[in-house]
Amino acid sequence: KILLEKRKNYQALLIGKTEIFEFYNKLLNTGLSFRKITGLSSIEFSESIIPVYDVFDRLSVDVVPGTPSVSGASAAMEAVKTAAKLALDKKISAVVTAPICKKGINQAGYHFKGHTDYLAHLTNTKNYVMMLVGGGLRVSLATIHIPLKDLWSNLTMESLYEVICITNRYIKLFGVKKPKIALCGVNPHAGEEGLLGNEEKQILKPAMQTARADKINVTGIYPSDTVYWEILKNNTADAVVAMYHDQGLIPVKTLAFDCSVNVTLGLPIIRTSPDHGTAFAIAGKNKANEKSMKTAVKTAVQLVCNMDKF
Amino acid sequence: KILLEKRKNYQALLIGKTEIFEFYNKLLNTGLSFRKITGLSSIEFSESIIPVYDVFDRLSVDVVPGTPSVSGASAAMEAVKTAAKLALDKKISAVVTAPICKKGINQAGYHFKGHTDYLAHLTNTKNYVMMLVGGGLRVSLATIHIPLKDLWSNLTMESLYEVICITNRYIKLFGVKKPKIALCGVNPHAGEEGLLGNEEKQILKPAMQTARADKINVTGIYPSDTVYWEILKNNTADAVVAMYHDQGLIPVKTLAFDCSVNVTLGLPIIRTSPDHGTAFAIAGKNKANEKSMKTAVKTAVQLVCNMDKF
Repeated sequence: KILLEKRKNYQALLIGKTEIFEFYNKLLNTGLSFRKITGLSSIEFSESIIPVYDVFDRLSVDVVPGTPSVSGASAAMEAVKTAAKLALDKKISAVVTAPICKKGINQAGYHFKGHTDYLAHLTNTKNYVMMLVGGGLRVSLATIHIPLKDLWSNLTMESLYEVICITNRYIKLFGVKKPKIALCGVNPHAGEEGLLGNEEKQILKPAMQTARADKINVTGIYPSDTVYWEILKNNTADAVVAMYHDQGLIPVKTLAFDCSVNVTLGLPIIRTSPDHGTAFAIAGKNKANEKSMKTAVKTAVQLVCNMDKF
Repeated sequence: KILLEKRKNYQALLIGKTEIFEFYNKLLNTGLSFRKITGLSSIEFSESIIPVYDVFDRLSVDVVPGTPSVSGASAAMEAVKTAAKLALDKKISAVVTAPICKKGINQAGYHFKGHTDYLAHLTNTKNYVMMLVGGGLRVSLATIHIPLKDLWSNLTMESLYEVICITNRYIKLFGVKKPKIALCGVNPHAGEEGLLGNEEKQILKPAMQTARADKINVTGIYPSDTVYWEILKNNTADAVVAMYHDQGLIPVKTLAFDCSVNVTLGLPIIRTSPDHGTAFAIAGKNKANEKSMKTAVKTAVQLVCNMDKF
């Protein structure tokens, strides 16, 4: 659906198994055609003929749309690996990943929580940040896919400081020249001066002060139930650092679930993805909403265009 | 500011110290006048003369706008107590409370976390629920003003079941005939089948099943980052039960901070309030936005009108 639109500032390279793209091509009756390539020297880009980098010739993939399979999960991870390599080698400018099934990749022997961890592994990146962008907000997560109970062993002064630094640096890829970062409290009312929790004083404030000593413009600590409204109304910050998954994702997805984007900050490559999962229930039925994927592509292009400001 | 509007379905009774209302009356140059009353038999309602039930004749109150005082906090709590009594005695139909300073009331010797606890105490109510209404959402909180770390000792199968039951019953005051209630997970992705936490299985699911056995239409367990968007888009539920303060308040306040309303469900009286605090920094400067307070009054009237459906 995205390839049907005029590609203004970019060329598209598909990475995956050609037969699968052909299946969807027929289903959607696009009028596009694909050209299987096995090396990047042979790429010719055109509006209607889309190159497919197919590294799966030797890989037999069982594909029943909507039914996860080990070979499907392996192929997905192989595609991600290929994309990361091409990006590291500067053969492509950015990677936009489609959703994967976390359970599936684990069954296929890839012990990662998802793309982000895998891409960090492939690019030898220690510190990275998941940022959600949508509804007029940009939100970095200090902790991500962990049980809420484990928040306290994962949220440290050092880890939070690192997230603030990465956010401050990489937010410039959005064209922000002098980043202003807002810090969410972790407790209701940002702890209300200790009445509702001490982590603001013990963890958040020291992290904020260390970042400020580095001349990072980070303010707070704001109650998370009002900080987003304030930013939307008065444009008071370029990015928010939220302490845990739902605190950061609720505002973005409530405002813009169908067109928000996941950006990984801190990698040596540019990577975006839609904010939704595999949605196996509607796979192969031509029911998927492409808006978030489209915004992911658009955002990747934006980030590439701002690389010189970085 | 609210009293300046035509009062269609209700009459207004102010409870507090007449001098304070007069101060604001002058400041806002309303053209209204107040009539001090000390008993309800003498009330005459009119558009421009507002009765003030003044129980503070003997109480000396130091009022410097924006500066909390023990006598001011005592007067505020005395007003709340009076309002609760009048409502319990069916002399008034509903109570709309203005913000109080939690620290101030504690210094004045009232050891409550806020209005809600105090009203529960005054009305001898054991189980009650704080609900936030705004932006097209109605959200009940399973836990409220506690440090996030204490969530696990406060969120039990029994307490959650109680919150679901109260929500199911009192949501009918909003004119909902057959309530549909959506339950948020407490962990990211609602625990992702145990990968990201077990409380969904151990606490939430049993509470939901017990409520279902009572023929309550409660569904879930939904990831909290997408449930609100889904409800706004497809009207799939009349109320959401969120597990903790920020999980419930972030969506409502991000969408509608300046016009959302706090409703206490489960009391024998109807009580609403605006969703903001005292804002001492702008007190007495004619800068306050009255929208949330206005919506609180409107909501109270709505709830009273639906009392017969309850």
